[in-house]
Amino acid sequence: MRPRNDSRPIGVFDSGVGGLTVLAELRRRLPAESTIYLGDNARAPYGPRPADEVRTFTLESVGWLLAQDVKLLVLACNTATAHALPLVRDVATVPVLGVVRPGAVSAAASTRAGHVGVIATAGTVASGAYAAAVGEADPRLVVTQLACPELVPMVEAGQLSGPVAEATVSGYLGDLFGADPLIDTLLLGCTHYPLLRPVIEQVAGPHVAVVDSAFTTALAAEDLLDVLGARTGQDGPGANRIVTTGDVATFSAVAATVFGAALPSVEQAVVAAV
Amino acid sequence: MRPRNDSRPIGVFDSGVGGLTVLAELRRRLPAESTIYLGDNARAPYGPRPADEVRTFTLESVGWLLAQDVKLLVLACNTATAHALPLVRDVATVPVLGVVRPGAVSAAASTRAGHVGVIATAGTVASGAYAAAVGEADPRLVVTQLACPELVPMVEAGQLSGPVAEATVSGYLGDLFGADPLIDTLLLGCTHYPLLRPVIEQVAGPHVAVVDSAFTTALAAEDLLDVLGARTGQDGPGANRIVTTGDVATFSAVAATVFGAALPSVEQAVVAAV
Repeated sequence: MRPRNDSRPIGVFDSGVGGLTVLAELRRRLPAESTIYLGDNARAPYGPRPADEVRTFTLESVGWLLAQDVKLLVLACNTATAHALPLVRDVATVPVLGVVRPGAVSAAASTRAGHVGVIATAGTVASGAYAAAVGEADPRLVVTQLACPELVPMVEAGQLSGPVAEATVSGYLGDLFGADPLIDTLLLGCTHYPLLRPVIEQVAGPHVAVVDSAFTTALAAEDLLDVLGARTGQDGPGANRIVTTGDVATFSAVAATVFGAALPSVEQAVVAAV
Repeated sequence: MRPRNDSRPIGVFDSGVGGLTVLAELRRRLPAESTIYLGDNARAPYGPRPADEVRTFTLESVGWLLAQDVKLLVLACNTATAHALPLVRDVATVPVLGVVRPGAVSAAASTRAGHVGVIATAGTVASGAYAAAVGEADPRLVVTQLACPELVPMVEAGQLSGPVAEATVSGYLGDLFGADPLIDTLLLGCTHYPLLRPVIEQVAGPHVAVVDSAFTTALAAEDLLDVLGARTGQDGPGANRIVTTGDVATFSAVAATVFGAALPSVEQAVVAAV
């Protein structure tokens, strides 16, 4: 057990900007906690990379975060969670939360019909991580996955609503519900997708529950701090650092398009000898 | 962080026999883990007792379990969780999981309409613990609670199905859905109630999701062991001890009525100088 009133920051890792949805939920839920976000934008996206490379890059990035003396590590990256979570847990000296399991558990709790749909990037779908995690929560559930390669570029271009977003989401969900009309719970298996949640909910209709990994992972982090007695003892707002391995101006521009003006200033770091 | 491959047992505490539903789910999910269950039957039920007394008795019981060198403590008792969880976390040297939060989080994930019903004992309803935990997960949700004092005695008498069980459950659920017809998620806020789940699901109908604290707490325990890297490294089935502070024959009779013949033999322990 860690000491009580642990004021060290929570480390949040993603290959790029998508994990900022998880960070935003963490900050909303736990405003007194300090956070350090690391985006490995210099090497993003991880999705198309071989699993070995994803593991190496994730370990390097996580090593940098651990060196900042974080008390909890959140892998806010589906690709890193799918390929490297057990490995990160082996090397980390602090608890490690992945982004897959909390959403999968919520989806398993949510479905009435026992039919869950998962939308994600091609890489996450190919990893089967969500299907496995939903099945681990409840083996009776039927899971149908669909890769939606156009959604991340659309979000990063700031297209979060309007006719293009609606048509694109409608196309994908039409395919998904065509493949399994019994789906009553839709799991957003990509950290970018919570930004499309209003459009997705509208297209999916009121009888489909939308489960969002950013929301569920932040909730799991809050719970974990309570279970471990590791919340900060400080009352004021926590400090927040955002760090990228890539170009600061590019990162800030995409992040601001997506997340608005409230983003803290962005720093740059080198996480590995390249 | 604990060392990897931690073969110490999981401690499970309840005031009586109800927590055996949580134990059963834990053993189903984590057959390689060892467990020690303590029922404080000599002083059960805790529900009608003043909060101060619940805290004292819980701390004494938990102290006994901690002395058995458990790696994780599950408060499988709604009354103890409602009144003593923060206190237990303050004194415990291991992570402590309550039985309220996992079910509340699942219920929050499950509802479409935003209306959650909670059935529990009078004491748990009066504590407001489930309503608070659901609201903490998502403050927009509307929670309606109903005390169902006849259900625990009915379960302990072995009445898990048939006309009496159906009529009793129908009466309660009629009141609950009468109070809020928009309820689409029903949270079983008492560890005895999972044994009535088939009847409850049948009476509630297919459009109401039933969320069961035993299932969700066991899932949370499994997840926590993964996050902490604290699963046992042993492959064979874990050892299971069941201990009561009360009369062994009485405990065994009620437990066997409810849980069948698979129950391990029951030991007796004294947890406090009375």
